[in-house]
Order: sequence, then structure tokens, then C-alpha cells
Amino acid sequence: MEKGISQAVIRRLPRYYRYLGELLEDSVERISSSELSARMRVTASQIRQDLNNFGGFGQQGYGYNVKNLYDEIGRIMGMNQQHNMIVIGAGNLGQALANYVKFEKMGFVIIGLFDVNPALHGVSIRGVKVRMLDELKEFLQKNRVDIAALTMPKEKAGKVANMLVELGVNAIWNFAHLDLEVPEHVVVESVHLSDSLMQLSYNIANREDERKNKK
Amino acid sequence: MEKGISQAVIRRLPRYYRYLGELLEDSVERISSSELSARMRVTASQIRQDLNNFGGFGQQGYGYNVKNLYDEIGRIMGMNQQHNMIVIGAGNLGQALANYVKFEKMGFVIIGLFDVNPALHGVSIRGVKVRMLDELKEFLQKNRVDIAALTMPKEKAGKVANMLVELGVNAIWNFAHLDLEVPEHVVVESVHLSDSLMQLSYNIANREDERKNKK
Repeated sequence: MEKGISQAVIRRLPRYYRYLGELLEDSVERISSSELSARMRVTASQIRQDLNNFGGFGQQGYGYNVKNLYDEIGRIMGMNQQHNMIVIGAGNLGQALANYVKFEKMGFVIIGLFDVNPALHGVSIRGVKVRMLDELKEFLQKNRVDIAALTMPKEKAGKVANMLVELGVNAIWNFAHLDLEVPEHVVVESVHLSDSLMQLSYNIANREDERKNKK
Repeated sequence: MEKGISQAVIRRLPRYYRYLGELLEDSVERISSSELSARMRVTASQIRQDLNNFGGFGQQGYGYNVKNLYDEIGRIMGMNQQHNMIVIGAGNLGQALANYVKFEKMGFVIIGLFDVNPALHGVSIRGVKVRMLDELKEFLQKNRVDIAALTMPKEKAGKVANMLVELGVNAIWNFAHLDLEVPEHVVVESVHLSDSLMQLSYNIANREDERKNKK
């Protein structure tokens, strides 16, 4: 059944998950689609449609059971299993990722950090020491790695991605400023910060245009 | 004319801009839509449709002039003017942003860094010293700030966002793990790293389902 869920719905699920997690923290047991709607600023009918995609957990007159819905969305998103992650590039951004306690709570456990800078050799971040990149191959032979985060300059990222794929890493979280070319079975999720900044710039320019037009 | 451009097209423009920038670096002067298509993995007809939105710069038998197209997309995205940016939260992520030389090349100039941690007071990153958050108000009175990047825990981000809006900052680049509630004239672009990671997790789980189904 889940096969038919559109990417648009899938893109919204992390947000539902986030809000439901906040409700759980606040010990809220159930919520109506209209309350969830007000909180998430999505129409109630959109919420009902979205959640109907995987069976419709809401009950007439009761609403949604927060814990059930949270767990179910988590299951759909693959959050019910641990993901071992390594970070390649232990500069500021790599260290920021390694320092996010939240990721570990979500089941994304950073088990290795790699860099080419000898000055970082031996540095530990939350108990994980930085290894040199030439130790990667041996590390991958000894450890199950589900996700590799690439937080390195784009000049090196393509080469490292190829190496990872050859060594059997099938999921890449890419922060380098290029679109990786990888075989079809490899999953890539990119965070392009410059693209995001350009989007912001566009919205600033456009808002200013609108103001000028009003004058 | 630009009013009518859909958000879907706008979302693709940074990628065009990125690729055209790479072509410029490689001293490529012109490119056909089919070459650009192969490079970007978007259909040639999609590219023609997208670029026709702002006047169609392509010429039959010539293709696109790389520099013109790059400049025009840049202009549309508001890249032809400098944006003064401050970063609030000078931890790893804030420092990572401040260290990206690329942003400055794109016209996003970081003019201030703020934190509440006294240990960071006086630390300089690429010539910009970290100030304490209680200096923010005075700083905003003295300096034009176009964008504030929020790289701080979500517990504090809402409050700081309100303060920024009160002090006249109208664009926020939000890395905190919450959806900011701000007045309509304020532009927000969010980078939710956990959402991105969940998306990756979904695609991993789904790929594995597909494999199992094939067996």
C-alpha cells in the first residue's frame, strides 16, 4: 500500500513527525485534525488526505492517537531501526553534525569521523575520534555503515562518493555543492546551502518588488 | 512578467545558476539546451520551458549564451546586490556558515556573529568577532542587516526571531528545528537537517523494500 504514496506527501511526513513528537513531549494523547491543522498551518482536509494514505488512523469524534500516529509515521520513514552513520569532513559542519544529540535520539548514530587534515587526527567529538581518510576502507570492512554524510569541499566529494559506493555504502547525505553521480541503487539526499540562500534572496527581492508596486 | 513564475521553477533556478557558474569557470561561452540537459539530468524540453519563463534567451542554432543566462538568473534571484548577513549562534554550525568563503563570493557578506556563550566572546572568524547577544540591538541600530541566520537550539530560536523582527530584520535563514511564526512581510527559509535525514531514511527503507519484493 505504501508504494503509492507520492513524494509530496513523503516530504510532509517529517513535519508531521516533528509536531507529533512535540505533542508527545507535552504529554498530549490525542488530537483532532483541526487542532493539528491550526498547529501546522496546513488545512484539516489536507491532513486527513495525507494521513489516509496509510490507512487513516483517525477515528470519528476521537481524532488521532498521538503516540500511534507518531510511531506509524516513524515506521513508514524507517525510523524504527538504527542507522549507523559516518561523517567525512570533520571541519565545522562535520563537527556540527557529530554534535547534534538529536540525531542519535532519532536512531542515526555517528560511528566514525574522517578527514584529511592531520591536525584533526585524534580529536574526539562526543566520544568519536577523527580518523584519517586512508583508514576508511579498513573501517568499512569492519563496521556496518548505513549512511555517509559528505561535508567536504566539492572538489573532493565526487571522488570520495565513488570510493564509498565501491566499498558498499549505499546512502549518502550530501552537503557538498554538487550533484553526485552515483549508481541507481545508491540513495542520495542533498543539502545545498547556497541553493537555500539563493531561494531566500529571491524571496527578499520579490517581496521588495511587491512593496514598490504598491507605492 | 516575473510575477507569474511558479515556485517549482524558482526552486530549480539555483541549480541552473550553479551549473552555469561551473561552465563559466570552465570558460564555456555557449551551450545548447540538450547539452545543458545532459549535464543537469533534466529533459531538454523542461529546460526550454523553464527558461522561456523569463523571455527565452536561447537562439535557434546557437543555444544559450552562458554568461548572459547566468547573469539573468542571478538578477532574477536577487544576486546582483549585496546582502548583509548576521549569524546568531556561533557554535559549530554558525562557524561553518561564517567560514564558507563561497557565500561572500555570492554577495552574502557576514558582518556579525552573536552568541550567549561568554567563552566565545572575542573569538574571531574570518575577521568577524563574536559578540554577545545583548549587543544585538545596538548592532542592528548601527548596521544594515538584510538576513539573520539562526543556528541555535529551537528552545531559544522563537524568542530571538521575534526580537529580530521587532528590530526590523525581515529575512531569516532558519536552521533551528521548528517552524517560525513571524509576520507575513518577514521571509523565512528553513533548513531542517532532521527532516532531510528522515527523507533519506525513508528512501533507504523503501529501496530495501523494493529489493525484498524482487526476491
